[in-house]
Amino acid sequence: MTRKRALGVAVVGAGYWGPNLIRNFASSGDWALRAVCDLDLDRARAAVAGRGEVAVVTDLEEVLSRTDVDAVAIATPARTHRAIAERALAAGKHVLVEKPLADTPAAGAAMVRLAAERGLVLMADHTYCYTPAVLKIRELVASGALGKVLFVDSVRINLGLVQPDVDVFWDLAPHDLSILDFVLPGGLRPEGVAAQGADPIGAGKDCVGYLSLPLGDGVMAHVHVNWLSPTKIRQMVIGGSERTLVWDDLNPQQRLSVYDRGVDLTQQAVDSIDRAGATVSYRLGDTWAPALPEREALASMVAEFAGSIRERRAPLTDGEAGLRVLGVLRACDRSRAAGGTLVSVAAPDPAPLEEVGA
Amino acid sequence: MTRKRALGVAVVGAGYWGPNLIRNFASSGDWALRAVCDLDLDRARAAVAGRGEVAVVTDLEEVLSRTDVDAVAIATPARTHRAIAERALAAGKHVLVEKPLADTPAAGAAMVRLAAERGLVLMADHTYCYTPAVLKIRELVASGALGKVLFVDSVRINLGLVQPDVDVFWDLAPHDLSILDFVLPGGLRPEGVAAQGADPIGAGKDCVGYLSLPLGDGVMAHVHVNWLSPTKIRQMVIGGSERTLVWDDLNPQQRLSVYDRGVDLTQQAVDSIDRAGATVSYRLGDTWAPALPEREALASMVAEFAGSIRERRAPLTDGEAGLRVLGVLRACDRSRAAGGTLVSVAAPDPAPLEEVGA
Amino acid sequence: MTRKRALGVAVVGAGYWGPNLIRNFASSGDWALRAVCDLDLDRARAAVAGRGEVAVVTDLEEVLSRTDVDAVAIATPARTHRAIAERALAAGKHVLVEKPLADTPAAGAAMVRLAAERGLVLMADHTYCYTPAVLKIRELVASGALGKVLFVDSVRINLGLVQPDVDVFWDLAPHDLSILDFVLPGGLRPEGVAAQGADPIGAGKDCVGYLSLPLGDGVMAHVHVNWLSPTKIRQMVIGGSERTLVWDDLNPQQRLSVYDRGVDLTQQAVDSIDRAGATVSYRLGDTWAPALPEREALASMVAEFAGSIRERRAPLTDGEAGLRVLGVLRACDRSRAAGGTLVSVAAPDPAPLEEVGA
Amino acid sequence: MTRKRALGVAVVGAGYWGPNLIRNFASSGDWALRAVCDLDLDRARAAVAGRGEVAVVTDLEEVLSRTDVDAVAIATPARTHRAIAERALAAGKHVLVEKPLADTPAAGAAMVRLAAERGLVLMADHTYCYTPAVLKIRELVASGALGKVLFVDSVRINLGLVQPDVDVFWDLAPHDLSILDFVLPGGLRPEGVAAQGADPIGAGKDCVGYLSLPLGDGVMAHVHVNWLSPTKIRQMVIGGSERTLVWDDLNPQQRLSVYDRGVDLTQQAVDSIDRAGATVSYRLGDTWAPALPEREALASMVAEFAGSIRERRAPLTDGEAGLRVLGVLRACDRSRAAGGTLVSVAAPDPAPLEEVGA
Repeated sequence: MTRKRALGVAVVGAGYWGPNLIRNFASSGDWALRAVCDLDLDRARAAVAGRGEVAVVTDLEEVLSRTDVDAVAIATPARTHRAIAERALAAGKHVLVEKPLADTPAAGAAMVRLAAERGLVLMADHTYCYTPAVLKIRELVASGALGKVLFVDSVRINLGLVQPDVDVFWDLAPHDLSILDFVLPGGLRPEGVAAQGADPIGAGKDCVGYLSLPLGDGVMAHVHVNWLSPTKIRQMVIGGSERTLVWDDLNPQQRLSVYDRGVDLTQQAVDSIDRAGATVSYRLGDTWAPALPEREALASMVAEFAGSIRERRAPLTDGEAGLRVLGVLRACDRSRAAGGTLVSVAAPDPAPLEEVGA
Repeated sequence: MTRKRALGVAVVGAGYWGPNLIRNFASSGDWALRAVCDLDLDRARAAVAGRGEVAVVTDLEEVLSRTDVDAVAIATPARTHRAIAERALAAGKHVLVEKPLADTPAAGAAMVRLAAERGLVLMADHTYCYTPAVLKIRELVASGALGKVLFVDSVRINLGLVQPDVDVFWDLAPHDLSILDFVLPGGLRPEGVAAQGADPIGAGKDCVGYLSLPLGDGVMAHVHVNWLSPTKIRQMVIGGSERTLVWDDLNPQQRLSVYDRGVDLTQQAVDSIDRAGATVSYRLGDTWAPALPEREALASMVAEFAGSIRERRAPLTDGEAGLRVLGVLRACDRSRAAGGTLVSVAAPDPAPLEEVGA
Repeated sequence: MTRKRALGVAVVGAGYWGPNLIRNFASSGDWALRAVCDLDLDRARAAVAGRGEVAVVTDLEEVLSRTDVDAVAIATPARTHRAIAERALAAGKHVLVEKPLADTPAAGAAMVRLAAERGLVLMADHTYCYTPAVLKIRELVASGALGKVLFVDSVRINLGLVQPDVDVFWDLAPHDLSILDFVLPGGLRPEGVAAQGADPIGAGKDCVGYLSLPLGDGVMAHVHVNWLSPTKIRQMVIGGSERTLVWDDLNPQQRLSVYDRGVDLTQQAVDSIDRAGATVSYRLGDTWAPALPEREALASMVAEFAGSIRERRAPLTDGEAGLRVLGVLRACDRSRAAGGTLVSVAAPDPAPLEEVGA
Repeated sequence: MTRKRALGVAVVGAGYWGPNLIRNFASSGDWALRAVCDLDLDRARAAVAGRGEVAVVTDLEEVLSRTDVDAVAIATPARTHRAIAERALAAGKHVLVEKPLADTPAAGAAMVRLAAERGLVLMADHTYCYTPAVLKIRELVASGALGKVLFVDSVRINLGLVQPDVDVFWDLAPHDLSILDFVLPGGLRPEGVAAQGADPIGAGKDCVGYLSLPLGDGVMAHVHVNWLSPTKIRQMVIGGSERTLVWDDLNPQQRLSVYDRGVDLTQQAVDSIDRAGATVSYRLGDTWAPALPEREALASMVAEFAGSIRERRAPLTDGEAGLRVLGVLRACDRSRAAGGTLVSVAAPDPAPLEEVGA
């Protein structure tokens, strides 16, 4: 067996997230890190950390003109994703984009279209999807171990770096939405979105948010995102007809618990002639906590990026996935503007909007 | 000090909840249990359990005509509450009513009106409010220990006896709503109600429910009730400007945790001239878990019923409280009927409706 | 199939534990409770609670002379067990004895001998052994699911009713020792006992205790009992060559966890020629929490008592089991008297001693 | 205020622990890392990681002859500590030594003596003592918040790198013993040591160990160390007359819990004339979990090393502390050799022994 040639990659943006990408590309056997591009050269040099073989540049064109660069990873602010991605795709480079894919669904759709036309990989860096826990959840759902998914409830109460230009929906919900898109068979395609937000501290934007996402056939997904509690909760419950899964990301001793319990619909013997007379019963069984390998999510993510390029296939979190997440976020804005009523995701989003989630 | 005379009480209804009331009235020093009334004499006798001094009857009038009965406790189905309560109040008896207060806000309002006219106590048996944990939460909020309440998030994922005639909102949410009414200063008076329900198993009624209750000034309460998971979660988070409280009712070792942490709004130095430029920061402090006395909630509840009669004052959970809970439940029905949009609680509820939460 | 005739039973002693036995015998289909015997008639009457068919007597002979009494359950102080048991066995009654079996191994041995001679059942009420968790542990060990047991570590930090006449070893360790006897194949037969006790509050007896029980072949059981912490811990770890089991009795959501992990001895490649050069490695696998039925331990215990009588076999916790526990407790006294050195359990215990664990 | 001159330091040994020391010295404002010394130059260079200003050498004398080196940190195998430390002290360098201080108490005592003669700092790198949790425990005990310490129970069940030349006592117990020495007022000075070990897998050395350490006046410390369970437990309970502290190092959400509960000795009214008639009662109060700062233990440790040198005082974990830990470990060997009986720590240790903990 011959050793595969490493693919060449350049990272654009050396701010908050870029250094993580740089570190993982540099230590991956699949990749050769060729260049880092940032307007702030000092920041870029610090991120490269004495790796002499990596070029540090300020000019994107310098990166795109290199023939030893097969792919570009974009870790710049969301509003710049489209322009950079389009230039990279036009130059024949595969593209990885930091979440969210773009600042608007229209921008994201344009990126997806161009990548498809050029036959290049466009991948969304939905990092959480590559954690061992989420990979295992996806596997469990896909294998049918949970039966039919009945409801998903996700809570993300988080303290953290609050960015001035986004609200809690656009800051935190992309994590939950990208995970839902990843684990639900067929991806996240809700019938509608109903959102309620609150700003009890006068921050000028929602700090507490609730999203209801009916998935069809009575199935409901719900997301609670919250900046205002210094007590972290990161929990997802997936109720299935056969088993129920609880993911408690802050319990390193037992992140995933699968309850071999289900809910059965029982027809009542009484004089009920319609389904309203039915009741539910519970089966109680064992609990099972699968062992999870210890692997950094970003390492798995860059490996998947390489794999999709080599195998000429869509990556697990492709541009379409990023676009679905964007669509829900934009629908969430519209629902809030309409008093929280259920709005369609598919509604037209006529022109690129200037501001996001403000 | 002279020993207070025990008040006489009769319990109407010896089904699911009645025996608990019977046991607590019988063992209370404040009360003398005089009679139990049920159409099913055997069931009533079993509930009385050989207490020879307690009359067992089928006729409500026989109870109401007794001069040694000061008060009547009603533990019959919700649709019968109004009729029984009105007859008891008309006979000059104080009244305790099992939750929910009535099957419609109109019925409840009539009961409240009559009690006020007669100068009698009308109390709602919101049992959960009298648990040591909720009494302590009320005390903490009232004392200002949490600062201004910013958000409340309540989750009740429960397996249990599913009654055929109610949905998950009417079955489980009364607990959360009565607790919110009890601990929020001024009671539960939301600006509106937005509700989303789901029935993924074809039960003919909602089995998963979400309620958003904006409380004014940007404050949000939210309730998640769920029948479909055999994994219990009963958790309430109350975020305050000074401290955050987490109540985990399934952790007997530490039910209440008070985090001495708060969220501060920080004006940014940058060129922002409006509040949108503000950001939040976190103070991290100690955690404190108050010791809770071990006392049965129903014992505290019957003591409060006696106290309110003796002191001629409203009980902590009076008819108005029961009515506020009913109003939210009814608004929740209307919001669901309107696709989950925010509806007003105060909207007219013209005539007694026949069915509840169906 | 004919319904089995209920066995007749009398309970002797209506103090702390007697009422629990009375309640369980009375509600068991296997048993007909015939009489309760106590010197304090009022206490006995209260324990019987209006069951008119149960005789209440002060004279043991009156109980033993009844032909409708097949068995006697003894719930009196330990120092009286031998005399009562011997009279009951002499009268041809099967005997159940509250833990500990007797106040000395000699007394216990005499009881065991007499029961054997008469062909009657002598059972120790090791209640904890009949909890769903311990029954499951016994089953797991017996089935080989854990592999070879390598070590057992039991911690019982408990607040509770401190009896004036026993120390922490005699008060709490019988629980752990009877469980060890129950779950270890072949029962608890240690090579020796080494005990360390401490009395840091000047109580005049040990309030903190540690027992080491080498079980042969390098296997070690260890018990930590403690009165002095108001924080309860009740945890047992059983390390096996195939799997490790953790029983956390204060975690009702997940009392038993079975870790599918084991320890392997690896021979090192280096120049080591003996086993001392070996090292251990770990296999990491899933965790599994078996569902436990909800059943009161005493209900299972009285059923086992009936079963052993009907099937003319030794009960799961027979007199020999009680005797093995007594032997370890007495050896524990001797080890403490000898500075904590390892002493043999089999050492002679010449004459009934007056005081216990003082 | 003038900025203090950084002290010069050299690290000897770049194996398992050395790189951690190198990283912390390099990033400390108190220190200037001058040199790293290791026989394996490649390993040393990798540990230095491109810090061009740091010399990498194989010859200890080259380090000791540098005038810009004030102190030497030794991270080599235990059996080499004495020789290296003595040469460094003779050269006038302050010395930090990896745990354990030496392979025998005699070797450790010689090091302590020489440092005292030369007026130089000799510090033991008891890293765990500098974790935020242990620093807080020390503070709580010293402040009297717990009252009089009544018992300490430490459990360390750990999977990890098993070194071929030590048993579980010498591998894991130094952590617990150094923490006990750090938090107990006056240090760890037990009246004796009783140890029980077990080797159920035929590893040729103890893999499970129990240490009882009576501290005088009825107070007991106990340590359980265990290699054989792949389930980690790291818990210490400190029972005090006023409060009880539980440290659960694997619960990052609440590592320290202080229970405001105590145990009181109550004289009984009955005819007891001696203390044996006394009983204990419990006060139940709140629980309190102090916030802990996030700081790497090694950063605090190297700061303490610098502080002790500058202020010409003993460091918090001085050579004497290391020596006390060594003394207990050696006594533990003697107790095991004597069947687990209580042996004195002070017993003579005539000559440097060749092997350790074998």
